[in-house]
Formats: sequence, C-alpha cells, structure tokens
Amino acid sequence: MPASQESSLRHRLALQLDPMLNRQDGLTPLNALVSAVIMIGIVMAILQTEQTIYSGNEHWFRFSELLFGSIFLLEYLGRLWTCVENDSVKSRWHYAFSFMALADLAAVMVAFSVYMGNGGILLRILLLIRIIRLARLGRFSIALDCIIEAVRSRGYELLISAIFAGVLLLASSTLLYLVEGHHQPEAFGSILRSAWWAIATLTTVGYGDVYPITGLGRFCAGLTAITGVCIIAVPTGILASAFGDALSVAKERHRTLPKILERERERD
Amino acid sequence: MPASQESSLRHRLALQLDPMLNRQDGLTPLNALVSAVIMIGIVMAILQTEQTIYSGNEHWFRFSELLFGSIFLLEYLGRLWTCVENDSVKSRWHYAFSFMALADLAAVMVAFSVYMGNGGILLRILLLIRIIRLARLGRFSIALDCIIEAVRSRGYELLISAIFAGVLLLASSTLLYLVEGHHQPEAFGSILRSAWWAIATLTTVGYGDVYPITGLGRFCAGLTAITGVCIIAVPTGILASAFGDALSVAKERHRTLPKILERERERD
Amino acid sequence: MPASQESSLRHRLALQLDPMLNRQDGLTPLNALVSAVIMIGIVMAILQTEQTIYSGNEHWFRFSELLFGSIFLLEYLGRLWTCVENDSVKSRWHYAFSFMALADLAAVMVAFSVYMGNGGILLRILLLIRIIRLARLGRFSIALDCIIEAVRSRGYELLISAIFAGVLLLASSTLLYLVEGHHQPEAFGSILRSAWWAIATLTTVGYGDVYPITGLGRFCAGLTAITGVCIIAVPTGILASAFGDALSVAKERHRTLPKILERERERD
Amino acid sequence: MPASQESSLRHRLALQLDPMLNRQDGLTPLNALVSAVIMIGIVMAILQTEQTIYSGNEHWFRFSELLFGSIFLLEYLGRLWTCVENDSVKSRWHYAFSFMALADLAAVMVAFSVYMGNGGILLRILLLIRIIRLARLGRFSIALDCIIEAVRSRGYELLISAIFAGVLLLASSTLLYLVEGHHQPEAFGSILRSAWWAIATLTTVGYGDVYPITGLGRFCAGLTAITGVCIIAVPTGILASAFGDALSVAKERHRTLPKILERERERD
Repeated sequence: MPASQESSLRHRLALQLDPMLNRQDGLTPLNALVSAVIMIGIVMAILQTEQTIYSGNEHWFRFSELLFGSIFLLEYLGRLWTCVENDSVKSRWHYAFSFMALADLAAVMVAFSVYMGNGGILLRILLLIRIIRLARLGRFSIALDCIIEAVRSRGYELLISAIFAGVLLLASSTLLYLVEGHHQPEAFGSILRSAWWAIATLTTVGYGDVYPITGLGRFCAGLTAITGVCIIAVPTGILASAFGDALSVAKERHRTLPKILERERERD
Repeated sequence: MPASQESSLRHRLALQLDPMLNRQDGLTPLNALVSAVIMIGIVMAILQTEQTIYSGNEHWFRFSELLFGSIFLLEYLGRLWTCVENDSVKSRWHYAFSFMALADLAAVMVAFSVYMGNGGILLRILLLIRIIRLARLGRFSIALDCIIEAVRSRGYELLISAIFAGVLLLASSTLLYLVEGHHQPEAFGSILRSAWWAIATLTTVGYGDVYPITGLGRFCAGLTAITGVCIIAVPTGILASAFGDALSVAKERHRTLPKILERERERD
Repeated sequence: MPASQESSLRHRLALQLDPMLNRQDGLTPLNALVSAVIMIGIVMAILQTEQTIYSGNEHWFRFSELLFGSIFLLEYLGRLWTCVENDSVKSRWHYAFSFMALADLAAVMVAFSVYMGNGGILLRILLLIRIIRLARLGRFSIALDCIIEAVRSRGYELLISAIFAGVLLLASSTLLYLVEGHHQPEAFGSILRSAWWAIATLTTVGYGDVYPITGLGRFCAGLTAITGVCIIAVPTGILASAFGDALSVAKERHRTLPKILERERERD
Repeated sequence: MPASQESSLRHRLALQLDPMLNRQDGLTPLNALVSAVIMIGIVMAILQTEQTIYSGNEHWFRFSELLFGSIFLLEYLGRLWTCVENDSVKSRWHYAFSFMALADLAAVMVAFSVYMGNGGILLRILLLIRIIRLARLGRFSIALDCIIEAVRSRGYELLISAIFAGVLLLASSTLLYLVEGHHQPEAFGSILRSAWWAIATLTTVGYGDVYPITGLGRFCAGLTAITGVCIIAVPTGILASAFGDALSVAKERHRTLPKILERERERD
C-alpha cells in the first residue's frame, strides 16, 4: 500500500464513506451521522403527516428538509469523488449509473422536494434501504441474513403451515358465508367479506367490527377460533426456533470473523 | 415391460395422469395444469359470491365455467381410457364406480352447472380433494401425513389439554352466567350464551360484542382471561413441537426415499 | 382369598363399583355408564338455562331428571351394600359418613330436585368431582397429577412470572389512570377501573369496550401492549414445557405400572 | 465478636431490620411485617382512587394512613439507631443521607400526607422499591437478577427482533395511512394515528376502535396481522427461553449458596 495514497484526503474520506473498505465492526463516524440524518428525516416525514403537528411549524420542516438535502448532496458528491478507491468499482462513470448511486441521487432529490405529500413519504421510507447499505458490515446486516437464513432453512415447514392456514382460512370463510350470509349480508355476504372476519379471528386480533350473531354461526366461529389458535401457533413456533438457530450460528461466525480478518492482515 | 406398451400413447397419457404410476417427485405437467385449473376455479367461485365483482362480469364467469368444465371432462375421459394401465385397477368397470372416479364425474358436473349458488361453492371446495389426490406423491401428501402423525403421536397430551380447556370453558361460562346473567340476559342469560363470550376470551380473540359490566363479572373475566391464556398455550405448544418432530422425520424419509426407489429400479 | 366370597354377587358388584379394587386400566362398564349419565346430566343442566330450548321441552328435562336420579340412587345403595368388600373401609357406618358417600348422597338429591335454578347448576358441576373419582385409576387422574406436578415443579418460576405480571398490571393501570382518568372517568377513573383495561390488553383479549383516546394514553397503551405480550409469554412458555415434561414422565410410569402390578399378583 | 454486643438489644434489632446482616433465606419477621404494611398501603391507595369505595369510608383510610405512617416512622428511627451495627456503614450521619435512608424518610412522609391525590399514588408505588430492598437476599432479588440476566444474555437477538418489529410497525402504519387515510381521516389521517391501529393489530390486542373499511385496506390489514403474529412471536419466544435458562442457573446457584455460607461460618 503506497504511502502517498494512504495519506491522501480521498482515501481517508473513502474509508469513512464506503463500508466495504472499512472492515471494522459497526458504522464509521461519517456514516453514523448520515444514518442519524436519515432516521431524523423519516421521523420528521412521519410527524409531517399529522396536521396538528405540522400546522404552525411548516418553516421548521422546510428548514430541516433543506439541511438534510444539503448533507445528502455533499455525501453523494463525496461518494462520486472517492468511489475509485474501491477496487471493485471499474470507473466513476460506472459507479454513477450503479443502483446504489442512483438511489443516493434519488435520496438527494427526495430531501430537496418541497412538496411532501404521500409520494414523498413512500420515497423517504425507501431511504431505509440506504441505512441497511451503510451498515453493510454492521450488526443489522447479520440480522437480515439471519431472518433470510431462518426463513430459508424452514421454508418447507413454513410452506406447509401456510397451506394449512390458507385452507383453514378458506374453509372458515366459506362456512361463515353459508351460515351467516343471509343474516348479515354486509359482513358475511360473500366469501371475500367473510375472509376479513376469518383473518381477524384466526390471528386472534378480533376487532369486533363483524362477528356472527346466530347460534350456529357462533358455534362455527368458536370452532374456527380454537382450531385457528392451534394452527397459527405452528408456523409461529417454527419461525421462532429457526430464527434462534440462525442467530446462534451468526453469533458464532461473528465472534470468529474479526480473528480471521486480523490473521489475514498480519499475513499482508 | 413390453416395448409396444411403453411406446403406446395410452401408457404415456397414463404416466401423465396417474400419480401412482409416476414415481417422480412433484406433479406431472398435465396434473399441474389440472391443479391450476381447479385452483383458478375455486378463486372464481369465491369471487362469484361477491355481488360487486360478479355483476357485469357474468359472461366471463360463464365462459370460464364452460372452459374448465371441458378440461375436467377431457381429463375424466382420459382417466377412464388409461386406468387399465395401473395394475391395481381390476377393470375399467371397477374404476368407473370407484370413489375417485365418481368424485371426478361430480367435478365435471359441478364445473358445467350453470347455477352457482351456495351448493355450487360447497361442491367446488370438495374439488380440493382432487388436488390432494393429484399431488399424492408430492409434497402436500407429506404435509398431511405430518399433521396426522403429529396429532396421533401427542394424541394423549392433546386429549388431556382439550379436557382441561373444556372444563375451563364450562367453569368460566357457568361463573359468568351466575354473575352477569341478571344484568345482561341477552349476552349471559344462559350457559350456552356465556360460552360464546368464554370462547372469545379464552382464545384471546375478544370481539368485544359481549363483555361483563359489573365489578364482580370483570374480576371473574380477568381471572378467566389470565388462566385461559396459560391453559390454551399448552396444547398450542404441544402441537407446534409435535409438528416440528413429525416434519423432521418426514424430511429425512423424503431425502432417503428417492435413493431407495432408484436402487429398486436398478434391481428390476 | 376364599372361594365363597369370590363367587358372591356382592364381590362382583364391588369390583364394578369401586375403582380402588379394580386394578385394570380405565373405567369398569358400570362406572362408564354412571359417568355417561353424569355427563348427559351436566349437558342437560347447561341446556336448561337457555329459555329458548327449555320452553316447551320441560317434560323431557323432568323425565331425564327422574331417570338419572334413580340411577344415582341405585348406585348409592349399591355402594353402601358393597363398601365392606374394600379392606380400607372399616365399617358400613364409617363409609356412610365419609366425604365421598355424602357427595354421592348429595348427587342423588340434586338429581331429584325439581327446582333446577342457579343453585342446581352449581351442584351439578360439583358432580364432575364424581367423574374424577370414578376414573381414579384411569387416564384422567394421570392428567390431573401431571397438571399438579407441572405447576409444582416450576412453582418458583411461575411465582416470579406472576409477580412481574402483577407489577406490570399495577404499573400500567396506574399509568393509564393518571393519563386518561380525567378524559374518561367512567373507564379510567380509578386504578381498579384501569385494571380491567390493563388485563384485557396484557392478555391481548382486547374487548374494545374501553381504550385510551388521548395521544399520550395511546402511547402508554402501546408500550403496555408490547411489554405485556413479552412478559405474559414467559409463564405461558414455562407452563407448556413443564406440562410436557410431567406428561412424558407420567407416560413412562403408566407404561411400566401394569408390569409392576402383574409381578405383584404373581408373587401373591 | 464480643458477648456484650451480641446480647444487646441494638444488635438483635439490627439483625431483624437489616437484610444484609441476616444471611438466612427469606424475610425476617419484622421485615415481613413492614412488607405486609407496604402491600396493604398500596392496596388501600388503589382502592382510594375508586370514589364508590372511598366515599363514606374516608375515616378508615385516614386511620390506616396514620397507623402505617407510625409503623414506618418507628422503622425509620430503628434503622437510624441500629445502622452502625453494619460494618459497611461508616457513621450514623453517613447513613442518614444515604439514598435508602432518604427513601425511608420519604415513605414516612408519604404515609402521613393527608392529601392522597395522584402524586400520593405515584409515591406509594415507589414504596415497592422498599420491598425489593427488604427482600434483598430473598427470592425476589433472584427473580430480578434473572430478568436482567435474561434480557442481557439475549440482548442482541432482542435488539434485532425489536428492529424488525419497528420496521414492520412503520411499514404497516404507512401502508394503512396511504390506503385508508382519505376514507377515515380521524383514524388513519396520519402515520402517527395509523400507528395506534398497527400496534393494536401486531400485538393481536385488536380493540376494534379503529379498523380499515375499504377492501384494499382490509387486505393490507390482513397481511399485517399475519406477518405481525409471526414476527412478534420471535422476541416472545427468545425472552421465554432466556428467562428459563437464567432461572435454572439461578436455582442451581441458590441451592449451593447456603452450603457455601455454612462452610464460611464454620471456618470463622
């Protein structure tokens, strides 16, 4: 590694910006700042939808948008400048049209957009993808891998459970449609309408906006509730244990990873 | 196995239609098509019950019924023709009066039936049995075996849990009937009526259409809810672990099954 | 064992009536009949509380009461006559005033009581104790032992969970009382009233008859719901695993018990 | 240890009051009495908030406050007198200004305060800290350690689950805000308002005060409920198993602790 490159501002900035170059655990200070700005931006976007909070504080929301937009713009320019430090990036031109760079550009434009209606919120939530990217080598990424690993390792069991849950949903919806459809056409007048009741019952949410009123309907609903509680518990239990297994594997890997990286550095 | 039979169209069709002849994992292309048609037919039957979707699209539903009916008819005739390829079928006459063949005939008639009221929906859901049959050697069958195996292996525990849940249901229904019956005769005026509240509470669905209003009633309901959450969790946990055990056994068997079949074929 | 005694009617009846003399698994035919009569009696007592079923069928209910009362009376007299066959019973006089004999007498009187109001139902449910007694050596008794064993073996963990659940209940009730008390005095006007909401929330029953309406109240309620779901799950999980452990121990004992008894008989 | 000191009243009182001096398991008789008084005081504070109970019984509540206040005052004075028996206390002056002594003084003042409004209840609940302190070496302290240990040992898993639950909460709130916001501005008019619905759904509490009414909204709500039930189950399962592990470790330690202490005494 030549000394001139190491001492250069660009390299140091690249180490700060690019999580792939930085093998340390966690976020770099600069990325932590950007993550914080994204988080605050999301919170502000949430608060902005509430008229009772937004009214009278419009200038604060405008000001923060300008500030966050400027930070994102600076970060975007910094990335464009430093991207060539990463050996896996072919040229600045290639990087500028990569998915991640375009996502960053979109983030800048989102932050600067004055109009913050429904579309703006959707885009802001897409900013969450950027946090995940910044934290690539951090803990969050391991968590994502665990979830994916957990779902994949028990994919078969989950599929079967899902099929049974689906059949149960269909059966109970049809049953209640047949039994209660004539008495409450608004709530159980079709299988689709009954399905809304069936989901609320099988997940035990039970909003109580629709419920059977006839004796036979209540008997069927009771059977559905009891069966549903048992059936729904199965994928839940499988997912919980799979997630636990995947996490313990990931933790082990995580604990041994720094040592492996250290040894590799010593070898260099 | 004579070459003439193997090359015949009938044998090839039989391999496509009869899951018992086809030892491969999953569905044959023809059975996959029939399954898809059944699935779409069920979805259409569900949508048909919703007047806001059905009104104005009657001709589409009529057309799809005719189309699906024709496919089922062709499949039924194909099965009648090829059934003698399966050594376990004595004669075409025997097959025609078997439960499965009659179910297929019913399916054809269901699909062709112009009137698609409540009865039609029930029959369509019976079509699901055909999917299970088509997938006999596929994954769904293993899943069914697992559920049956899980329930059988812990039948004793589940029975005991069910008894306790039943006693709890009876006790809490009686308690609330005694305490709240005079204040809310419509909701708690008999043990049967209280049972509707008790099921909604013990499964934690909690529709909220009926609930105690007196202090004593609320105290009893609170006790019921807490006890119920603990008691209901027991069969749920047992079923989840039993299902997990049965699945891991089934997976092991599934993994070794193709090798056993291969060895048998080599021996032939 | 003298032959005269073995051949006597009294001894054979005693073997039928007294579960302690009968070392076989399950109920004797006579006890099975009595259990069935008790079960049907309880079902009829439940149906009797529902006016829409009782009205017009009074004579059927009256007739079944007379019939069941006669069966219970015959059984009671039979027990009085045969009780001296059991070596652990000192004299017929002692037996007549034992708790179990008095319970039987009460059952006879309950069955004959013409007036079947609330008190009658309570007494009928007490008849369940008789079923448990009849099944003394049967499966139900093992289930009862398992529940008791499960609760005892994890009594410490359950106590601690209960304390935490209690503290959480108290804390959330107080919180909502302070936050929502002024806005909804009817629902949250005292800690006791808030507790009704807190139990419905912590057990996730959520009737929806009372709920916070202010922003701060909803924030606290949300925190309560999330914390509650986690805390309530702990005793539930403990109880489920303890019950599973106790059952597997009981099953093992149950499987080896007949062999031990057989060996003892051979020794005699 | 001089005999004069051992025989003194002060030393015996110190053994009764200070849980650190008393190495026996559980509470001393005096501390048990004080704990009971605190418990009754809290129950009375709860009942006092309910006007239908308080009205007409004001004098009983006043009297019990005076009585409990006197007991706390005596206990406080006793502690001040005996504190020097504990070697870890430097001087009576130091003790008087320690956190625990000030908490005791606050408890005395709380008990004597005539006005028992909202503030009084909050202070009374702070009295619970005193019970924990009195039971320092008792079972409750082990339970607290277990909870802390359980949360710490699985802190990583719980954090990840919390992040996913949070993302799910945010995503479903935004979804329903976009879909239902225009139809029900009161219930889904902002992401914050939707979050109230989302928490009630994800925890399966389902109050039923707000729920989607459009077809698309119900579809999204159904998806949220099903996903939520699976995701929320993960931290619940982790916490339950972690608590179980921590408890079994604590039980082992608890069983061996008295033996270790005994050996130490024999050595003295």
